[in-house]
Amino acid sequence: MRNIMNLTFGFFSCESSKMTAKAEMAAEEGYISPPPTLPSTPCSIHLGVHAGSMRRGSNVLSTNRGMVRERSRNRSWLLSSIITVNVLILGCALVSGSVFNNVKINAINLQIFLILLVILTTAWMMYYTIYTSREDHAVLYKDSHAGPVWLRGGLVLFGICSLIMDVFKIANYVGYLHCDSAVKIVFPVVQSVFILVQTYFLWLHAKDCVQLQRNLTRCGLMLTLSTNLLLWMAAVTEESIHQTVVPPEDVNSTHSCDIRAPGGYSSCNCSHSACAILEKAYYYLYPFNIEYSLFASAMAYVMWKNVGRLVDEHNHHPLHFRPKDVLVGPAVGLVMLGAGLGTFVIYEVDVEKGNPGKRDTALMIHYVMNTVAVTLMSVSTVAGCAIYRLDQRDHVSGKNPTRSLDVGLLIGASIGQFTICYFTIVAVVGTGAKGHLNALNLAVSLLTVIQLCLQNIFIIEGLHREPFHEDMHQASVFTNPYVLQAQAHRDIHNLPGMFMETKPSPALTVPSMHVAPSAPSGSPLPQRHRLTWKRRALKEICAFLLLCNILLWIIPAFGARPQFDNTIGAEFYEFTMWVAVVNIGLPFGIFYRMHSVASLFEVFLTS
Amino acid sequence: MRNIMNLTFGFFSCESSKMTAKAEMAAEEGYISPPPTLPSTPCSIHLGVHAGSMRRGSNVLSTNRGMVRERSRNRSWLLSSIITVNVLILGCALVSGSVFNNVKINAINLQIFLILLVILTTAWMMYYTIYTSREDHAVLYKDSHAGPVWLRGGLVLFGICSLIMDVFKIANYVGYLHCDSAVKIVFPVVQSVFILVQTYFLWLHAKDCVQLQRNLTRCGLMLTLSTNLLLWMAAVTEESIHQTVVPPEDVNSTHSCDIRAPGGYSSCNCSHSACAILEKAYYYLYPFNIEYSLFASAMAYVMWKNVGRLVDEHNHHPLHFRPKDVLVGPAVGLVMLGAGLGTFVIYEVDVEKGNPGKRDTALMIHYVMNTVAVTLMSVSTVAGCAIYRLDQRDHVSGKNPTRSLDVGLLIGASIGQFTICYFTIVAVVGTGAKGHLNALNLAVSLLTVIQLCLQNIFIIEGLHREPFHEDMHQASVFTNPYVLQAQAHRDIHNLPGMFMETKPSPALTVPSMHVAPSAPSGSPLPQRHRLTWKRRALKEICAFLLLCNILLWIIPAFGARPQFDNTIGAEFYEFTMWVAVVNIGLPFGIFYRMHSVASLFEVFLTS
Repeated sequence: MRNIMNLTFGFFSCESSKMTAKAEMAAEEGYISPPPTLPSTPCSIHLGVHAGSMRRGSNVLSTNRGMVRERSRNRSWLLSSIITVNVLILGCALVSGSVFNNVKINAINLQIFLILLVILTTAWMMYYTIYTSREDHAVLYKDSHAGPVWLRGGLVLFGICSLIMDVFKIANYVGYLHCDSAVKIVFPVVQSVFILVQTYFLWLHAKDCVQLQRNLTRCGLMLTLSTNLLLWMAAVTEESIHQTVVPPEDVNSTHSCDIRAPGGYSSCNCSHSACAILEKAYYYLYPFNIEYSLFASAMAYVMWKNVGRLVDEHNHHPLHFRPKDVLVGPAVGLVMLGAGLGTFVIYEVDVEKGNPGKRDTALMIHYVMNTVAVTLMSVSTVAGCAIYRLDQRDHVSGKNPTRSLDVGLLIGASIGQFTICYFTIVAVVGTGAKGHLNALNLAVSLLTVIQLCLQNIFIIEGLHREPFHEDMHQASVFTNPYVLQAQAHRDIHNLPGMFMETKPSPALTVPSMHVAPSAPSGSPLPQRHRLTWKRRALKEICAFLLLCNILLWIIPAFGARPQFDNTIGAEFYEFTMWVAVVNIGLPFGIFYRMHSVASLFEVFLTS
Repeated sequence: MRNIMNLTFGFFSCESSKMTAKAEMAAEEGYISPPPTLPSTPCSIHLGVHAGSMRRGSNVLSTNRGMVRERSRNRSWLLSSIITVNVLILGCALVSGSVFNNVKINAINLQIFLILLVILTTAWMMYYTIYTSREDHAVLYKDSHAGPVWLRGGLVLFGICSLIMDVFKIANYVGYLHCDSAVKIVFPVVQSVFILVQTYFLWLHAKDCVQLQRNLTRCGLMLTLSTNLLLWMAAVTEESIHQTVVPPEDVNSTHSCDIRAPGGYSSCNCSHSACAILEKAYYYLYPFNIEYSLFASAMAYVMWKNVGRLVDEHNHHPLHFRPKDVLVGPAVGLVMLGAGLGTFVIYEVDVEKGNPGKRDTALMIHYVMNTVAVTLMSVSTVAGCAIYRLDQRDHVSGKNPTRSLDVGLLIGASIGQFTICYFTIVAVVGTGAKGHLNALNLAVSLLTVIQLCLQNIFIIEGLHREPFHEDMHQASVFTNPYVLQAQAHRDIHNLPGMFMETKPSPALTVPSMHVAPSAPSGSPLPQRHRLTWKRRALKEICAFLLLCNILLWIIPAFGARPQFDNTIGAEFYEFTMWVAVVNIGLPFGIFYRMHSVASLFEVFLTS
């Protein structure tokens, strides 16, 4: 390859050739910084080369540079994928081994593997941070769409909770140090350092489009991704085991015999008195740690996709957030949010009491609340989709990797919620269960499935539309004089370049009026008042959906688990399996709601 | 949207405008057939419109058509994804419910769901076949790379086996008809019709790039994909249950208590005598049915990706298969294949006897054979990768969806094999097992992981290279007179356009000799004999790897299950889990080997 590289340089023989050569070598090593612009004209004058040959040389060069880039991209893509596959599957085998097997492999072995992985990842992240701060060319572009503030904010929030969890864990395991492995203390210590470094790293670098050391960076990011996914897997497993070993009283716990106790120290007693409280406290913090790993994985994946990307800074129109534009949506949304939070508090209080009668009432209120919320959301989403149909805004053309990624993450994350809903539906229908509670449970699940489908369609349609104010230009009508001349032979000499306002009616299909996708010249006269009702309706719907999604995020994120409080799922499936389904599905559901809130805010702004 | 469409037509006012309008309407409805070429010159002469304005109109038109297409693509992409997610998750819940639950939901419920799904899919496939045969514009392009002969051949082979399985099933369940559900007979009947229709459909239409009714076709193909994946899931589950209920004698079967018997008719006796044989026979055919579903899924996915695609028929060079070019590779490969098949027969005979001593010897021979094969393959792959490094062939530039898909399927399918290997490694290391057998088991697993990584790299690198005969042009050297003039001020007037042969040595980096990526003028003089050793070595390696992959395909495809015959995996993990891992991983492993054979053949031809 180096041969080809060198050989192409011969097309240039004046000073510029050396500059190009340097740039090219740099490209090979990992630079993609735009090379110093070729001073082709002076060079060719000096040599008497005609422009055509020079241009050919330049084309060859750029073709070669593209090829070198693509080749390097393919190689490092392949290498980093292989690393990920290997780390993940090995980790998966270890996690499975540590759960199911009784003696030979245990949580300690898994934790040693995780410690090694975490140290390696932390070291790479520190190296990356130091390296990019020293090199000017390392990051030339930032992807303004990557690492949005809700993602970074969520990361910090969940990171803090994870740190508290690690502190509790350390304090707890110190009490067992006299009779248990020291690895159990080392792991949370290493993990907390990892969380600190990673949060700092992702906060600073989430938007980076790395140009230097691309191979190493791709592998490092995939290592980060694998580590986070393995930590996620380990945390989900540990939480599931915890729940299976200490099941609710009313579930017959014959299935938990195969599963080992979380610590495995049945004969080992804690040396200080705070153990019981600490253990209970840190299990409450597990869901936040699980979310943290998911957030970090998503951000590492976006960074990996952005390595070597040359962002063309397309003109970002400043989108203003004017809350006074809308009224009904936020008002209804706030009422829903208030009512929802009220029922959430009642639910938590009633369920905590452990009285079955109280619990059923609490579940009933919870289901009714959810049914109302989800139904209203579905109806307003359908209205929103109908407005899109009427709406003449252009679709965003061209490929946008960040948008595709956003859409992929949205659909991917919704699978978690879908899974829980369908499993519930099958359980309720399969049991043939009667009664209000079961009917409501079924209704909520069915409506949630519909709501998820509709909301996905609404958000994705919204993200694919051009912002409204651009549309104002594009919807302006101008009359093509030549057409009129040909059609009616009327005198249209006084009409060239005339602009008329858009009428969203069939009248526009009259052949003498033509929408030009972009007004060719002159300034169009945007007529905002005609479109306002559509824009306003869309904004109202977005605001309402946004607030409802916040509600549906808060309820599971802060601990409501109707899936376990209603015992139908645990009775229908094996308890272990149900725990696994809920513990894997719910964090994705929470992520989905947060992602939806952010996407709906974007749709709100562009509408 | 229709408004915008109509409005753009006004740019054209002579006859051609009507033609374009028709084409455009067609595009909206689903046609993407290239519209009748615009007779712009006569039209503009007639109207006196200057060419620039005409061109602008044409651009607007094509932009709009592109936008309409993209919008429609996005919508149907979204819709078909949502359908798939819903069908798959509902199916997943039903499968899980039917496995784990004891009374309320059973195999019958699942089969009713599958019957409905299969009938729907069959109906769509028949509709599609009839519709496309009647409409001329339905399929304008064929993707020559999709649905290669190995895939279609494999589909037919596995389809026949699946049909035999269904016949056996029907005959078996007829014996239970007096005391069991009739659904158990209906399901195989419907499934066999489905297999016949689907095999015909995929054989004929696997290469189609559908242009008409794209929305419906996308949804139909995704339905086909979902149905096949669900049938695959159901078959894997049923086979796993079968293996768990009738475990090998030496595995303690305490874990199987939760799992129901496959038929669930313990009190129901067969009314004819052939039942026992039939049941044994059709369980042998399950793996073929599982493979069939995987093949059909892969083909449906490729068709889905190709809907609406406009294939630019890039010049396919006729690649000739000349087996006499190579000798060593095929010879060593055939020796390996013969030896491997020999040990396979010994293995099957010895294991069948059920004598533990015999079984250990058989396993020993099997592992030694595999170690030798995998080691030789790894070494030759490393040699191949080294040759690629030396080799100056260009990388294929530009995106090719079929190639990306091929690469994705290759890496994706290899995950199955990776999983089994890593689970085995963890089991052997975790048990701390001593002895030759365990050491060999560990060695084979480790070497297979290495071999898989290397082979993936080798195949993907190979697929991304331009065919060698193109390279002959590109590797020819010509001296750029201007460069020499500038560098040494030598008299080079007698050299313009001189061609020199490539030397694959550092001498090429001397700045006076330059490889041009494409010879600019005149006919290059390809010098084949110099590059022959590289081409030949690559071909030898490909042929060897190809034969070894055939061997590694035959052994598991025709029934060798060392994963179960060696009890370490089943003892280390829960038996249920180990069965699931092997039953999910192995079919992907078999698919991977077949895919590798096809890809290696392609690399062989292009080398």
